[in-house]
Amino acid sequence: MSLNISAERLLADLTHLAQIGSGADGGIHRVAGSAADFAARDWLDKTLRCAGLDSHRDPVGNVFGRVPGSSGPWLLMGSHADTVPGGGRLDGAYGVIAAIEVLRTLHEAGHPAAEQIEVVAFWDEEGVTAGSGGGLVGSSALCRHPHVEELSGYLELHIEQGPRMDSQGIELAAVTGIVGVRRYEVTVQGEENHAGTTPFSARSDAGRVASRTAAALQGICQRINGSVIGNVGAVSFGPGAPNVVPGSARLEAEIRAGSDEILDRVDRRLREVLARIASEEGCTATLTETSAKPAAHFDADLVDLVDAVCRRRSVRTERMVSYAGHDASVLSTRVPTAMLFVPSTGGFSHSAREDTPDHLLVLGAQALLDSALAVVAGRVPQQLAA
Amino acid sequence: MSLNISAERLLADLTHLAQIGSGADGGIHRVAGSAADFAARDWLDKTLRCAGLDSHRDPVGNVFGRVPGSSGPWLLMGSHADTVPGGGRLDGAYGVIAAIEVLRTLHEAGHPAAEQIEVVAFWDEEGVTAGSGGGLVGSSALCRHPHVEELSGYLELHIEQGPRMDSQGIELAAVTGIVGVRRYEVTVQGEENHAGTTPFSARSDAGRVASRTAAALQGICQRINGSVIGNVGAVSFGPGAPNVVPGSARLEAEIRAGSDEILDRVDRRLREVLARIASEEGCTATLTETSAKPAAHFDADLVDLVDAVCRRRSVRTERMVSYAGHDASVLSTRVPTAMLFVPSTGGFSHSAREDTPDHLLVLGAQALLDSALAVVAGRVPQQLAA
Repeated sequence: MSLNISAERLLADLTHLAQIGSGADGGIHRVAGSAADFAARDWLDKTLRCAGLDSHRDPVGNVFGRVPGSSGPWLLMGSHADTVPGGGRLDGAYGVIAAIEVLRTLHEAGHPAAEQIEVVAFWDEEGVTAGSGGGLVGSSALCRHPHVEELSGYLELHIEQGPRMDSQGIELAAVTGIVGVRRYEVTVQGEENHAGTTPFSARSDAGRVASRTAAALQGICQRINGSVIGNVGAVSFGPGAPNVVPGSARLEAEIRAGSDEILDRVDRRLREVLARIASEEGCTATLTETSAKPAAHFDADLVDLVDAVCRRRSVRTERMVSYAGHDASVLSTRVPTAMLFVPSTGGFSHSAREDTPDHLLVLGAQALLDSALAVVAGRVPQQLAA
Repeated sequence: MSLNISAERLLADLTHLAQIGSGADGGIHRVAGSAADFAARDWLDKTLRCAGLDSHRDPVGNVFGRVPGSSGPWLLMGSHADTVPGGGRLDGAYGVIAAIEVLRTLHEAGHPAAEQIEVVAFWDEEGVTAGSGGGLVGSSALCRHPHVEELSGYLELHIEQGPRMDSQGIELAAVTGIVGVRRYEVTVQGEENHAGTTPFSARSDAGRVASRTAAALQGICQRINGSVIGNVGAVSFGPGAPNVVPGSARLEAEIRAGSDEILDRVDRRLREVLARIASEEGCTATLTETSAKPAAHFDADLVDLVDAVCRRRSVRTERMVSYAGHDASVLSTRVPTAMLFVPSTGGFSHSAREDTPDHLLVLGAQALLDSALAVVAGRVPQQLAA
């Protein structure tokens, strides 16, 4: 039996939701807790109820929808409804609307799987507001709530938010996990000196240590593994005058990789390179880890199942790791979890330029429906591929 | 006939002047226009008058001293009396006190050369205060004043303010000129992006352009000429967050070399390297010259004369270019000019750590006396060396 989602309804709902918080700059302003965010969750309530589904909210404001009278355990599907200021219309919203469309399609068809599915719009994934502690607030709250015990798994459909799939013509991806992220602050102590009278050989130039280390990070990542990524986002020199050899310097960097073991290797190499450069420049340097988010590994069986579903829907499919954080990383600590990606045109996200072609949005939602059916039916990937 | 300065009087006067503006931090706070600066110039007036010399000030506040009734042309000798905040006791002050000691010695001895010598304590060399336009205020004013036409030349004795002489055991140096200085602002435009989802290959990382260029400057200088020097004193990235690939970057740099031709070569090479790096990183970069001070070349005959004098006083002598600016660079545009350097212990200057051993302070002042006598007598270096 093959069920199809309604492309028209999916796209229309995306358009409707995008109007809530739509700014003059073309971006969506639906920061968690804003009037637009409350309006969006009200609109989601209404949309669920119009489809004959129950809607309720948990104490933090996560919006849930399910078939009236269904008793679980449920396969949870969804994403978040908040945006960054001036964000795009798809980040989070697409996963929520697609999940609703999947459940609506099953419910309309009277499919028994509908009773085993719950949809969710998570509260405050972006973590933009002060005190939201870096985001993932709603999904983290769910994982501390007894309701998590009633879930059989979690599936999240999302846009990639990067250019990898778009540039390679990939239409669907089964996401194997989420990179771990480590953030660092590097401080360098040298000796402030007159930039004219002090020859190179007599300097302890903290600025050179920072510049050379910043320039080296990309090579360090690439030599360890092609999938490791890093960034130096901020640098400053003290005292900061053109005629003074910097006596101090500071930089902020991060590294991301699909496993903590690889992150450990990058970490060690970064410390070695920094120590060597500091020594060469006659300075002392300290590298401090300011935060560390471990890599999330999704459920292997669920990823295989999603991967098999994607392959049946498109030949342009791959397995990939997510370089951005998602609610799925939190859920994966409690229930079997997997994600599906569709491409982001040009790789843009968190901006008004964020986009994905309609036919791929429809394809992604259809793959989510296929995946949900397969999970509920307990089909293994081999059976799907057959 | 050999005349000797009084070591005791020279060192005592240096100690007295250092008490005016002396701070609890051990540094001298005698910024131009401050109460301490006015007190210092009053003290100089008194010191000149006690030595039987005339003292007067020009409209900007330069303090001049000469033998009463002398009619010029005068060989001007001196330096500046102001300091940076928390500066050392020798920068400027040494050249002023030594010049007074030289004229005092000649005047006491009834030497006819005394009537052809004038001493000066220049106003506001350091240019620390707002509106002082980068310093050299008093010497620049003198060069616009009719009095400059009454000068036969200018000699300035100064501490090196860098470690070159001290580290090589050089006791006296004849300064051949002052490096030209060009200051630059480099702005880089890239594309701000998510530091996780954007692979290295898809980035236009303005921060990498700034870091790589900053790291490259030293090599650019050293490959052109061992005497070229450069510095990157300030760097900033925009927007400046660890998880955002920098979309913009800015750096402030300067280069110094003994000739404008060499500065031109460094300038060209710096622009080439910046353009190549920016292109490799998919960014655009602009290098703007924010200021350019041309190299000053002192009078060749006068430098030869000073050099010969130095060689007679010490075997540890060299000719060198000054990497710091001095009033002599301004004077050299109007009258034959030369400078003498004594070492700075450890190369420290503009700090309480600034120092030079007493015997070298005495040696420098004696070399200034010898030079003054040779100049006034019109002796050429060959005669001196004989």
